[in-house]
Amino acid sequence: MSTTHQTAIESAHKRIKPFIHQTPLFSSESINQLAGATLLFKCENFQKIGAFKMRGAANAILQLKGNLSIKGITTHSSGNHAQAVALAAQKAGFQAKIVMPSNAPNVKIAAVKGYGAEIELCEPTLQAREDGVEKIISEFGFAFVHPYDNWEVIYGQATCVKEIYEAETNIDYLLAPIGGGGLMAGSILSTLVYSSTTKIIGCEPTGADDAFQSWKSGKHLLQTNPNTIADGLLTSVGLINFPIIMDNVSKIFTVTDEQIISAMKITYERLKIVIEPSSAVPLAVVLANKAFFKGKKLALILTGGNVDLRQLPFQ
Amino acid sequence: MSTTHQTAIESAHKRIKPFIHQTPLFSSESINQLAGATLLFKCENFQKIGAFKMRGAANAILQLKGNLSIKGITTHSSGNHAQAVALAAQKAGFQAKIVMPSNAPNVKIAAVKGYGAEIELCEPTLQAREDGVEKIISEFGFAFVHPYDNWEVIYGQATCVKEIYEAETNIDYLLAPIGGGGLMAGSILSTLVYSSTTKIIGCEPTGADDAFQSWKSGKHLLQTNPNTIADGLLTSVGLINFPIIMDNVSKIFTVTDEQIISAMKITYERLKIVIEPSSAVPLAVVLANKAFFKGKKLALILTGGNVDLRQLPFQ
Repeated sequence: MSTTHQTAIESAHKRIKPFIHQTPLFSSESINQLAGATLLFKCENFQKIGAFKMRGAANAILQLKGNLSIKGITTHSSGNHAQAVALAAQKAGFQAKIVMPSNAPNVKIAAVKGYGAEIELCEPTLQAREDGVEKIISEFGFAFVHPYDNWEVIYGQATCVKEIYEAETNIDYLLAPIGGGGLMAGSILSTLVYSSTTKIIGCEPTGADDAFQSWKSGKHLLQTNPNTIADGLLTSVGLINFPIIMDNVSKIFTVTDEQIISAMKITYERLKIVIEPSSAVPLAVVLANKAFFKGKKLALILTGGNVDLRQLPFQ
Repeated sequence: MSTTHQTAIESAHKRIKPFIHQTPLFSSESINQLAGATLLFKCENFQKIGAFKMRGAANAILQLKGNLSIKGITTHSSGNHAQAVALAAQKAGFQAKIVMPSNAPNVKIAAVKGYGAEIELCEPTLQAREDGVEKIISEFGFAFVHPYDNWEVIYGQATCVKEIYEAETNIDYLLAPIGGGGLMAGSILSTLVYSSTTKIIGCEPTGADDAFQSWKSGKHLLQTNPNTIADGLLTSVGLINFPIIMDNVSKIFTVTDEQIISAMKITYERLKIVIEPSSAVPLAVVLANKAFFKGKKLALILTGGNVDLRQLPFQ
């Protein structure tokens, strides 16, 4: 099983390398002092399209190249996955049609258009989004690339953590946020292959804590009415990702929006980089649990940097 | 002359290396497309204390180590030089007393205190600041480190551009902002030594354009009533720096605050990094003069990232 994962992750990395950035690990003496631990930040905010999502989308879409039955690529998303699919489709020479909710920010719609994709606006419900994609699949023969519940997407996201272990050894804890679980599942698979002594910490906002509640109860609970500033983490964990996460996560911590905003501000101030709120969740977890992480070497994934600069939450 | 400069710059670099970061060069395909040129951004916003000022302060202060007649270090500054002197003095084992105007932001005062320096608040006038420093020199036997009109500070700043030429060759234009002129003079000296075919472009806000006016008129005009968002560039060019700049600059461009804010926003959005307004002046110059820079390879210094996050100027 692990060999299969290793082969898939390594193929993915080789496949996507020309289309992604190998993002740097940043650190800050003052954040280390504040936390009482050694923190390494994997800067996926510097990734193509500004988020790790490019890795998974590129891995899934590049494999469809040359398949003549596929006329184009479609997905539904209001966020980073939409941009990732649009750019990856463009790089692979596919047309893309992206279903976006009509309340998506204009700046995100413009970014997706900028990568050459067509936009189909729909009502802002999951049903309308799925219906929109179904129609594109049946009418135009396009292939659907799910944002997280897709093995090739998961293997693509796994390359992010592979790069961390290639650059650094002896990491005690790997911390990543959990939304749909694609990044977390990929991170777990890479950890099993490349750094099996590293423990995995899931990080969630209290306002979208379905993975935490599921982990506590042992049941796959879905997220209803999420309410958090971390707009990349609103969704429920996917079916493929769920058992991988439940079997391998060492602990899941939750943090409030106030703690997320504070960690976000520290990141802007000390690392001098732009991140979106979801990216700040792992640092918020560390700062809220200093005794637990004291003296350890931690890797934290900064998942993306796509944020509305006119509405930064700093007071 | 040039050999003397080379020796001084290389000694400076060797001296300060343990105390500074070798900052990276960032680039962005989308900014290159927008500009129609190849832009390399030297990220001094990631430098210790968040600005290039650490280089010059460290070079000046480290050389005073072991001089028993010097009882401590003093300077006056409301901004990045204050933090740089405080941290460099701490690293060199000196006490520091920094004169700061009473209207300096609390966050900057706290940062200087955080590096172990004592603060003497004074009225927000140049006279009061200079009087404050005079008193500390005569009363306590402290040495004054001028923010820009000091050869060792200039040689320290020169190491920034030296790092650019070590990483990249065939740069057509080097662009840096001009405030007191320490960074610009140092950049010129390094260019003469390491990349003599590179042309130097000075960049100023229209609201603090004393170098531009001096360059046009051939006279050393002082800055009166500066009015610009680029708060690191309010001062007049210093006496040492003035002839170096006038003799070697290829051109000086000015840009409005509106253009500076727009370039700042592009930097946050595309490079995903936090910069202060002064850092955005060179990119604003490029975007306002696309025909001039078309197809060229440019290095732009991002001077610092110390900005009040609660008051970002994005609409």
